[in-house]
Amino acid sequence: MISEKMKPLMANNSAIRTMFEEGDQMRAKYGRENVFDFSLGNPDAPTPPEVKQAIKEIVEEEPDLILHGYMSNAGFEDVRETIARHINKTQGTNFSKKNILMTVGAASGLNVALKTILNPGEEVVIFTPYFLEYNWYVNNYDGVVVQAPTDKKTFQPDLKSFEKLVGDKTRVVLINSPHNPTGVVYSEETIKGIANILKKKQKELNRAIFIIADEPYRELAYDGVEVPYITKYYENTIVAYSYSKSLSLPGERIGYLVIPDELEESELVFDTASNANRILGCVNAPSLQQKVIAKCVDAKVDLDYYDRNRKALYEGLKDCGFECIMPQGAFYLFVKSPVEDEAEFCKTAKKYNILMVPGSAFAGPGYVRLAYCVSYETIQNSLPGFKKLAQEYGLR
Amino acid sequence: MISEKMKPLMANNSAIRTMFEEGDQMRAKYGRENVFDFSLGNPDAPTPPEVKQAIKEIVEEEPDLILHGYMSNAGFEDVRETIARHINKTQGTNFSKKNILMTVGAASGLNVALKTILNPGEEVVIFTPYFLEYNWYVNNYDGVVVQAPTDKKTFQPDLKSFEKLVGDKTRVVLINSPHNPTGVVYSEETIKGIANILKKKQKELNRAIFIIADEPYRELAYDGVEVPYITKYYENTIVAYSYSKSLSLPGERIGYLVIPDELEESELVFDTASNANRILGCVNAPSLQQKVIAKCVDAKVDLDYYDRNRKALYEGLKDCGFECIMPQGAFYLFVKSPVEDEAEFCKTAKKYNILMVPGSAFAGPGYVRLAYCVSYETIQNSLPGFKKLAQEYGLR
Repeated sequence: MISEKMKPLMANNSAIRTMFEEGDQMRAKYGRENVFDFSLGNPDAPTPPEVKQAIKEIVEEEPDLILHGYMSNAGFEDVRETIARHINKTQGTNFSKKNILMTVGAASGLNVALKTILNPGEEVVIFTPYFLEYNWYVNNYDGVVVQAPTDKKTFQPDLKSFEKLVGDKTRVVLINSPHNPTGVVYSEETIKGIANILKKKQKELNRAIFIIADEPYRELAYDGVEVPYITKYYENTIVAYSYSKSLSLPGERIGYLVIPDELEESELVFDTASNANRILGCVNAPSLQQKVIAKCVDAKVDLDYYDRNRKALYEGLKDCGFECIMPQGAFYLFVKSPVEDEAEFCKTAKKYNILMVPGSAFAGPGYVRLAYCVSYETIQNSLPGFKKLAQEYGLR
Repeated sequence: MISEKMKPLMANNSAIRTMFEEGDQMRAKYGRENVFDFSLGNPDAPTPPEVKQAIKEIVEEEPDLILHGYMSNAGFEDVRETIARHINKTQGTNFSKKNILMTVGAASGLNVALKTILNPGEEVVIFTPYFLEYNWYVNNYDGVVVQAPTDKKTFQPDLKSFEKLVGDKTRVVLINSPHNPTGVVYSEETIKGIANILKKKQKELNRAIFIIADEPYRELAYDGVEVPYITKYYENTIVAYSYSKSLSLPGERIGYLVIPDELEESELVFDTASNANRILGCVNAPSLQQKVIAKCVDAKVDLDYYDRNRKALYEGLKDCGFECIMPQGAFYLFVKSPVEDEAEFCKTAKKYNILMVPGSAFAGPGYVRLAYCVSYETIQNSLPGFKKLAQEYGLR
């Protein structure tokens, strides 16, 4: 009954469902507080109080028919201008409303961007490991994902290999930094390296190649690390942003695309993306939430909430003898499995009520992803289990 | 720079843009109150006061991280159950939460439904005239639109022609009632006729054929006319609903799909649609608005607002000598152009500051669409112009 294109997704899906169901079964059996579930990337830092305040003010201030009404497919102009100014202030860019397209979160933004520029058979280069959902977004437009390797130690892109993979079918390079699932932030050196290769390739191949930067974790960067703003390094860049993490609003589906003036035929691409937003059925980003964002443009979740978790889990795992790099962004730790088959490692961990996601689910076999967007207590209470798990693998 | 698939849309788009710009220019020149713009289908009946009240209550009652958080891709279970019960109460159906999938409005619901069941090259039958945006939705999944004729007097589907058009490539029949652009409500006889033909064809061709019912105007039905609930007549029916019109919330992008148990492999289709909702990038319908709907499930805009307009415009136009049928639903009048080339008629109307949309924009040449979701004063003040327009065409 279902379309051929959806069939492989549904087959794949049952594995993920089994994982969730196992978690639920464990919680039912052992009690919620005794299950250490690091499998879900659900933001859990408190929503900033500005959000509730903004909603209450907005419903009093704005006429209903404007507040809940249609606007341009790109979003309310005042909201887009406010966001442009905010990015300019924080990133030193020079955007205005004509560069900001409000979207139903970053996931929809990525779909809109791909619908706008990708042709069937064209390639989208993505560095491994990565959020495999990208495969489906690319598949929606009959594109082809090309996986590019990263350095095994730093998870920064391997630029030499990357250069070889960019060819006359390459249309997009999809970059995600701060990164899911590794927590890595791509350095300025990395971004410059990618940009230089693409500039050269664009000339050589005489075709436009776009960077699409998926940046839902932009604000979740620790230790004062700089997250380079990619439009400053490469002209044909589209940024997809979401407030899901920075304001803990994932259910509201609110984000934006940045389409800079410097991008080739910027105005046409922007108009086309606005229309793609419409015909994909979103029409526009949810109107009330657009207004909320404009009021909360300077608000941010408390980074310390995640940072404390990050340090506690990293230190705890290192003490057990596990191998992982200290993540500088997002809320994930990518830990090396002590055995090659990381699915087996995940299975063993369940003995200690610890739930993790196998790296293969991110095209990163041999590793596991731990999402530390959980309570601090969960991390504290999970550590004795991790210790036993490490001992079972003879780590310490 | 843009994808091949988007190019025809963008070419087409400039005509629509020109129309809007002309309207803006006229308003600037003659003053807003002197321009009679019937071109836009933007709901303008006041949003029911329950909506504002609900928002204020919800932000106080619900914990932020739940209210704004992720839920199942199909939506909050309590919201879905509330909606199912409401439909059961008003339509005599037997749905539960497992039949209701919350979507980013009906436009996204239609995309989700098509993504779920349509394969490239399969046909979607649509009765003319129709909302041409459907063409782009079908094109998103590489389907083929087949236009089916309607009776020239009633705009009810011509069932004999329809039957001939249903063949071994037909996957979907897309029905929209109350109807844009004619305002017609499909009678029970029509629905039964379509259902009987499809039941026969399904057996003959040994393949499932779906009705997708686009019902954003369901609540806008006048004179006590019955709008048949199609799942009761045909098992393989998916309903796409939106609160854009019934609650004047078009900017919020909130609606749902109904996937009944009676539909073949209903559970698989529902799960697939939930996943389609995710990978198309919507992920889930906006969370706060889901909760608003659950609180306002019995609320509705004041129908009299539109009904008064309907009667005034219909009577006014008839008095001028124009030919049109009395619409029973939605907020559109489809008026016969006094000359074959209705674009010329629209152009002439602009002399009297009257803006209408040529029927060709709905695959209905020879007619014009007037959207009467405007103020009552606009209608009153437009009538002298219509009178002169009629005289110019020698109508009275």
